[in-house]
Amino acid sequence: MDLGMSDRVRPLVEQVRQMVMEEIAPLDLVYEAEVGRHPSGDRFQHTERQLEILSSLKASARARGLWNFWLTDSEKGFGLTTVEYAYLAEEMGKVGIAAEIFNCNAPDTGNMEVLERYGTEAQKARWLPDLLNGVTRSAYLMTEPDVASSDATQISLSAVRDGDAYVLNGEKYWASGAGDPRCALYIVMTCTDPQGEKHARHSMMLVPADADGIEVLRPMHVYHTDDAPHGHMHIRFTDVRVPAADVVLGEGRGFEVAQGRLGPGRIHHCMRAIGQAEYALELMCRRALTREAFGKPLAQLGANHDIIANARMEIEMARLLCLKTAWIMDTQGVRAAQPWISQIKVVAPIMALKVVDEAVQMHGASGISQDFPLAAMWTRLRTLRLADGPDAVHRRQVARAELRKYSNQAR
Amino acid sequence: MDLGMSDRVRPLVEQVRQMVMEEIAPLDLVYEAEVGRHPSGDRFQHTERQLEILSSLKASARARGLWNFWLTDSEKGFGLTTVEYAYLAEEMGKVGIAAEIFNCNAPDTGNMEVLERYGTEAQKARWLPDLLNGVTRSAYLMTEPDVASSDATQISLSAVRDGDAYVLNGEKYWASGAGDPRCALYIVMTCTDPQGEKHARHSMMLVPADADGIEVLRPMHVYHTDDAPHGHMHIRFTDVRVPAADVVLGEGRGFEVAQGRLGPGRIHHCMRAIGQAEYALELMCRRALTREAFGKPLAQLGANHDIIANARMEIEMARLLCLKTAWIMDTQGVRAAQPWISQIKVVAPIMALKVVDEAVQMHGASGISQDFPLAAMWTRLRTLRLADGPDAVHRRQVARAELRKYSNQAR
Amino acid sequence: MDLGMSDRVRPLVEQVRQMVMEEIAPLDLVYEAEVGRHPSGDRFQHTERQLEILSSLKASARARGLWNFWLTDSEKGFGLTTVEYAYLAEEMGKVGIAAEIFNCNAPDTGNMEVLERYGTEAQKARWLPDLLNGVTRSAYLMTEPDVASSDATQISLSAVRDGDAYVLNGEKYWASGAGDPRCALYIVMTCTDPQGEKHARHSMMLVPADADGIEVLRPMHVYHTDDAPHGHMHIRFTDVRVPAADVVLGEGRGFEVAQGRLGPGRIHHCMRAIGQAEYALELMCRRALTREAFGKPLAQLGANHDIIANARMEIEMARLLCLKTAWIMDTQGVRAAQPWISQIKVVAPIMALKVVDEAVQMHGASGISQDFPLAAMWTRLRTLRLADGPDAVHRRQVARAELRKYSNQAR
Amino acid sequence: MDLGMSDRVRPLVEQVRQMVMEEIAPLDLVYEAEVGRHPSGDRFQHTERQLEILSSLKASARARGLWNFWLTDSEKGFGLTTVEYAYLAEEMGKVGIAAEIFNCNAPDTGNMEVLERYGTEAQKARWLPDLLNGVTRSAYLMTEPDVASSDATQISLSAVRDGDAYVLNGEKYWASGAGDPRCALYIVMTCTDPQGEKHARHSMMLVPADADGIEVLRPMHVYHTDDAPHGHMHIRFTDVRVPAADVVLGEGRGFEVAQGRLGPGRIHHCMRAIGQAEYALELMCRRALTREAFGKPLAQLGANHDIIANARMEIEMARLLCLKTAWIMDTQGVRAAQPWISQIKVVAPIMALKVVDEAVQMHGASGISQDFPLAAMWTRLRTLRLADGPDAVHRRQVARAELRKYSNQAR
Repeated sequence: MDLGMSDRVRPLVEQVRQMVMEEIAPLDLVYEAEVGRHPSGDRFQHTERQLEILSSLKASARARGLWNFWLTDSEKGFGLTTVEYAYLAEEMGKVGIAAEIFNCNAPDTGNMEVLERYGTEAQKARWLPDLLNGVTRSAYLMTEPDVASSDATQISLSAVRDGDAYVLNGEKYWASGAGDPRCALYIVMTCTDPQGEKHARHSMMLVPADADGIEVLRPMHVYHTDDAPHGHMHIRFTDVRVPAADVVLGEGRGFEVAQGRLGPGRIHHCMRAIGQAEYALELMCRRALTREAFGKPLAQLGANHDIIANARMEIEMARLLCLKTAWIMDTQGVRAAQPWISQIKVVAPIMALKVVDEAVQMHGASGISQDFPLAAMWTRLRTLRLADGPDAVHRRQVARAELRKYSNQAR
Repeated sequence: MDLGMSDRVRPLVEQVRQMVMEEIAPLDLVYEAEVGRHPSGDRFQHTERQLEILSSLKASARARGLWNFWLTDSEKGFGLTTVEYAYLAEEMGKVGIAAEIFNCNAPDTGNMEVLERYGTEAQKARWLPDLLNGVTRSAYLMTEPDVASSDATQISLSAVRDGDAYVLNGEKYWASGAGDPRCALYIVMTCTDPQGEKHARHSMMLVPADADGIEVLRPMHVYHTDDAPHGHMHIRFTDVRVPAADVVLGEGRGFEVAQGRLGPGRIHHCMRAIGQAEYALELMCRRALTREAFGKPLAQLGANHDIIANARMEIEMARLLCLKTAWIMDTQGVRAAQPWISQIKVVAPIMALKVVDEAVQMHGASGISQDFPLAAMWTRLRTLRLADGPDAVHRRQVARAELRKYSNQAR
Repeated sequence: MDLGMSDRVRPLVEQVRQMVMEEIAPLDLVYEAEVGRHPSGDRFQHTERQLEILSSLKASARARGLWNFWLTDSEKGFGLTTVEYAYLAEEMGKVGIAAEIFNCNAPDTGNMEVLERYGTEAQKARWLPDLLNGVTRSAYLMTEPDVASSDATQISLSAVRDGDAYVLNGEKYWASGAGDPRCALYIVMTCTDPQGEKHARHSMMLVPADADGIEVLRPMHVYHTDDAPHGHMHIRFTDVRVPAADVVLGEGRGFEVAQGRLGPGRIHHCMRAIGQAEYALELMCRRALTREAFGKPLAQLGANHDIIANARMEIEMARLLCLKTAWIMDTQGVRAAQPWISQIKVVAPIMALKVVDEAVQMHGASGISQDFPLAAMWTRLRTLRLADGPDAVHRRQVARAELRKYSNQAR
Repeated sequence: MDLGMSDRVRPLVEQVRQMVMEEIAPLDLVYEAEVGRHPSGDRFQHTERQLEILSSLKASARARGLWNFWLTDSEKGFGLTTVEYAYLAEEMGKVGIAAEIFNCNAPDTGNMEVLERYGTEAQKARWLPDLLNGVTRSAYLMTEPDVASSDATQISLSAVRDGDAYVLNGEKYWASGAGDPRCALYIVMTCTDPQGEKHARHSMMLVPADADGIEVLRPMHVYHTDDAPHGHMHIRFTDVRVPAADVVLGEGRGFEVAQGRLGPGRIHHCMRAIGQAEYALELMCRRALTREAFGKPLAQLGANHDIIANARMEIEMARLLCLKTAWIMDTQGVRAAQPWISQIKVVAPIMALKVVDEAVQMHGASGISQDFPLAAMWTRLRTLRLADGPDAVHRRQVARAELRKYSNQAR
C-alpha cells in the first residue's frame, strides 16, 4: 500500500505547486476583483482582463506540459494513478482558478471522463476535443429543486420518447459551471421510465447548452455569492428535443453512468479540500507568528498551540485516508472503493471547514473579509457537505458496509 | 431570580413576534432582493421600494407604540428591565431588518445609550432626537486594520490636541452601518495619549459623518456580502478636526465609555442570536416533516431526531444563561455582570451557528442559497464570534474570574 | 419563572453545604477505605467503623433538622418545591455518602415516593416508617439482563396469578442498593399480562428482600467497582409468592407507577451530577493554581484557561436547565415536565462527565487514582447515561415533542 | 511510503490474530476472574490457575515461533520494521494478557530495548536473558508523586554519589508491572545533579527490585482497579545503594535514555489502542445487529448508523497516522519521527476512548459491567492520555514543529 508520492509525479507536483502559489495565486485575486466589471454589467460575462488571465496562464501551463493530468488511465493523458493524481489535486485545490488553468477543474473532468468511458465515437468526436483543449466548458445537471436529490431515485426531469428523440421537460438547479458563457454541453440526468425498476428509470443525455427550450432562470447563491462567471444555475427545460443518439450508454442506464462518474470526482474534491486546509493552516501559522496582542504573538496565547496542533493532526489523517481510498481505487476498482469514498466524502470537507474556520478566527475580522481567501474557501468547502450526496447518506453507506461484515455471519 | 416573561412585557413580545413574522419577514425578502437596484447602480443607496418598506413598517410599529424598547432604565422609554428587553430582542433578531423597524438595531441602540448616559446636554440635543426618531443612523468606530483590536489598548487612531480641537489621523474599519446614507454620526475611539497609562490613553469622540477629511474607502465583505446598504465600512481620517466639546466624558476616558456601552449591547446581540437559532430550528423541523427521501420524511431518517433534540437543548440552555446574565445586569449592575456577559458572548453565537448549520444541512443545497434565510443568518452570526472581542478573549475573562475565587484563598 | 434560591431554602442549603464539605467529606474517605475490611471478608457487610460513621452523621443531621428534604409536597416533610430541593440535591451530590446522611439518597427517595403516592394504608404502614427513619433501605428492580430495558415494554419477569397471590419467576439486575444488608424491600416491575395492551402488561409489586425464592446472584461491576456495600445486584426469582395485596395501584398499572416515580428522581440525579461537576471544577482550579510545570502554574499553560472557562459555562447552562425543569414540574406537573426531564437527563450527565474528565486530566495520573474523588465521580456519573433510559431514548423524546409543534399544524 | 502489511509479516499477523481471539481471549476472562483468589488473599500473588494459563499460552506461542517480535532492528529478533510490528501490536492489544503471551508487553519491551541499546555487556548479561525468555519482569520508574512529571526536568528522586555507589532517596509511583512477584528489575530515573544543566541533571539506573531500602507502599488505582497482579506501584527508596556500574550510559544521560526508550514504545501503545478500538467496534456492531428495542435491531435506530460510521472512519484515520509514524521511524529515525509520535500519542487514545465509550453506550448497562471487556478497555485506554506525557504536552510539541516552518522564514 504505497501512499507516497511516486518519483514520476514528484516533479509534476513541484511544478504545479510553484505555479499555483507564485503565478496563479496573485492573478486569482485580480480575477476575483474583476467579477462584475464587464461593460454590460453582466456578472456572467468575463472581462477582457479575466480572459487574458485565463488564456495566458493556460498557455503557460500547457507549454510546460502541465495539462489534463486527470486522464488517469488513458493513453492520451499522463496515465497517472489516482494516488499520483491526488497529490496534484491537493496543490490545484489551494487557489480558486488553479484547477482550470491545468484543465483539471470540476465538473469538466468528470464530464470528460463520462465521454471517454461511456461515449460513442460520434459523441466523443463532437464534444471531447474542445473540452480537452480547454476551449469549451460543460455542466452536469443532476440536482432538482422539487425533490430531495440525495435520494437519486427521486430525480424526475421528464424525458418522453417521441420518434427518434426524447422530449425533455422540467427543472434542474445547481448546474455548476453553466453560468460560464463558454459552457457548451450539459450532461443531463433524465427520467425516462418513472414506473420502471428503481435503478433503471433514468437516462443520461448530452444536450447542447444552446438547445431550443432551455432557459437559464437564475444563478443559485452560495452564502451570498453567485460564483460568477462560473455560476450554479437554475435551468428550465421546456419541450427540449434530444436525439436518441445523444443518450449515453443507453436508455435506463443513467445510474450506471452517474456511479462511474462520481467515484474519482469525489476523491479529487476531497484532495482539493485538503489542499485548502493546508493553505489555511499555513495562513493561520503566519498570522499567529506576526500578529500581537497583550504583548505577545498570538501563537503564544491561550489555546492557539492546541488549535494549530489539532489542525495539523486532522489534516494528516484525512489526507492519508484519501490516499488510501485512491490506492484502493487503483488496485481494486471503483466498486471496492465505494465505502472508502463515502468515508472521505464525509471526513475531508468537515475537517477542512474546521481548519479554515479556526484560521478565520485567528485572523479576526479580516478572516471573514475579502482581504484573505479564507471566507471564500469556507463557503466553497461548505457546498461539499451537500454536493454528490449529503454527509448523512454517506455515513449510512459506511455503516452498512461495516454491519454487513457481521450480519452475513449472523445468518 | 425571575427569568420569566413579565406580565408587562408579554403583550409587547406577542405583538412584536406577530409583526416580525407576519409583516416584516415577507417584506424583508423584498428589501434584500432590492439591494443593488438603485438606478445609480450604487448598492449603498436605498431604492424607492426599500425606503417605502422601511418608512411604512416603522410608521406602523410606532403607531402601535412598539418603538425604542431598548431605553431600559430611562423615563423616556418603556423602562423595561434587561430581562424584559431580552425577550423582545429575541423576536427582533429573527429577521434581518426587524430590529430597525422598532428603532432597536445595533449599533444605534448602543450609540444612543452612550449619548444618554455619558453625553452633555449639548451633545444630546444635537444628536439624540433624530436618532430616537429613527431619522438618522450612527456608527461606532473602534476596530482598526493595523492592530489586533481584541487587545483594545492597541487602538491607535491618532487624535492630537490643537487649540480647541483634536486633529484625527488614521484608519478604522468594520464601521457597521456607516454605509447607510442616513448615517450622520460616528462615535470614534481615538488615541489621545499613546504613552499614557494603559486604560487612560483613549478618548471617545462624536464626529459628524460628513466632516472634512473623512473618506469611506470601501465596504468590508462578510463572506462575500457587503451587507449593503448598511455596510461595514473602511474609513480613513485625514486631519479631521473635532472640537474638544465633542469628546464624550472627557479626554482619556474612552475605555470607560466603551465598557459601559458594550455590556447591554452584547446581551442584545446574544438574544438576537438565540432568536435566529429558534427560527432555524423551526425551519429545520418544518423541512424534516415535509421533505422525503428513501420513502420517509427526513425527520424519520438517521440521526435527525438527535440533531433536532440537540438543537432544542442547546437553545434552551443558552437562552437561560442570557436571561440570567440580564438579570444580574438588572440587579447587580454591569460590573458584576461582566464575566457573565463574557460567558454568553462565547456561548450564544457558537450555539446559534451550530443550529443554523444543521438547519442548512437539513435543507440540502437550498440551505446555502438565497431561497432560505439560513445562509445569511449564518454569516451574520459568524461575525459575532469576532465583534466586541473574539471568543478567546472572553474565555480568558471567564477563566480568570473562576480562578480568582481560589487564588484569593491561596494567598 | 423564579429559578433562584428561596429565602426558605437558603439557610438549609448553607447548612447542608457546610456539613457535606466539612463533616461528611473527610469521613467519606474513611468509609470508602473501610470497604472490604469486614472480618468475614464480605465486602457487602458494613464494618463497625462504617456503621458508626453512618449513625453518628445521620444523628447529627437529624438533630439539626436536616432530614427527608425530598418529601416535596407532603405535610410530613419540608414541603419544599422541586426548585428548592434541587439546590439541596446539588450539595448532597458532591460527596458519595452525603445523600444518605440526610435520608435523601436514591433509590430510597423514589421508592418512598411510590409508597407515599400510590401505596395503600397497609403498604405504607408496613414499609414507610423504617424507611423514613433511615433504618431500612430499599431497592427498585426494573432492568433485566435478557432484554433491552430501554424499551420498557419488553420487561418480562413473569408474575402469574395463583389464588390470592402471584408467583414470580425471572431475573433482574442492576438492583442498586440491594447489596446493603439493611435493604428490606424490593419494588419490582413484573409482567402480569404478556399479551396485554403494551402499557397494561406490567404490575409493580412490593416484595420483602428476604422472601423465599429470592437469590442474589452477584454484584454488577461499574468500571471495576462493585460499589459495595451498596451494590448493584443481579437477582434471581424462583417461584417467589407475592400476595395480591402487595401490588401497587393494581394489576396492569406498573407503567403508571414507573412514570410517576421517575420524574422527580431524574431531576435529583441531574442536580447531584451538577454538584459533582461544580466540585470537580473547584478541584481543577485549585490544582491549576498550585501545580507547576515548565516554570508556571498549570493555569497559565496552553488551553487551560479555555478548559476552565468552558467548564464554568457548561455547568451554568445545565444547572439553569435543571432548575427550569424543576420549575415546570412545580407549576405545570410531571406530564408537562416530561420533555424537559428528557432534556436534562441527556444534558447534565454528559456535561458533568466532560468536566470531571477535564479535571482528571488536569490532575495527571493522580486524577485517575484513589487519591482524588474524580475517578469515582466519573464512573458514578457514567451510569447516569444509561440508568432510567439511555441518552438516545431521551433525545428521541425531545425531538418528538419538538416536531409535534409543527406536525399538528401540517394536518 | 508503503504502509501496507508486508508479505513477511502477514502470516505472523494471521497467526497472532487467531491465537489472540481464539485461544487467549477466553483464558483472559478466566485469568481476570482469578484475581484475588490466591489462598493468601494477596491480590498480587498469581493463583495456580493464573500461572498455568500464562505458562501454557507462552509455551504455545513460543513453540510456534511467535515470540519477541518487538526486537525490531536486532539480529536476535525477527528484524521486523516498525510498520510490520505495528500490525502485530494492533492484534496483541485487543486482549488484556495477550501481549505478555508473546513477550511483547509494556513496560518490558521498552526496558529490554534500553538494555539492548544502551546497556553494557555486564548489564545485558545480568538482566536480558531472563527478560527475553519471559521468566522475569521489569518496571520503569519515572513518575513521582510530588512533581508534575509531565515536565520531566522536575524529576527529583535523589541519587547522591558515595564512593563507588549512589545512594537513592525519594518516591516513585505508577511503576507499572512492579506489583508482579516476578518483577526483578527497576529501571529508575534519578536526579544526580539538581543544579546541573536542565537535561543533564538525571541518570538512569538499574536497581534490583529486592534491593535493601526499597518499600512498595501501595498499588495505585486506575478507576477503582489495582490492576493486580501487574499493578502500578507506589514505591519508596530509603538509602538504597546502587553501584555506579549500574548507571545506564553514564551519569547525567538519563534524558537521552528516556527519549530513546519512549519513541517506539509510544507507537506500540497507540497501535494496541487501535486494536482495542477495532475490537470495540466489532462488539458494537454485533450488539447493534442482535439486540432489539421498539421492534427493531438497535442498528436501525436513531443515530446508530452515524455512530458506527464515525467509529470506522476515525479508526481508519488514526491507524494510518500511526503507520505513517512507524514508517518515518523506520526510514528517517526517531528524531524525525518525534512530532509524528506526539501526534499519534494525542490522537490514538482519544479516538479509541470515544469508540469504546460509544460501544459501552450501545451495550446499555452491560457495557459498564464485568460482562463485557469494554469497561476495562476504557480505563486502560484512559491512562494513555496521561502516561508518557499528557495530551497538552504533545500538542505543544506538534504546534511548535508546525510554527517552526514559518518562524524560520520570518527571521
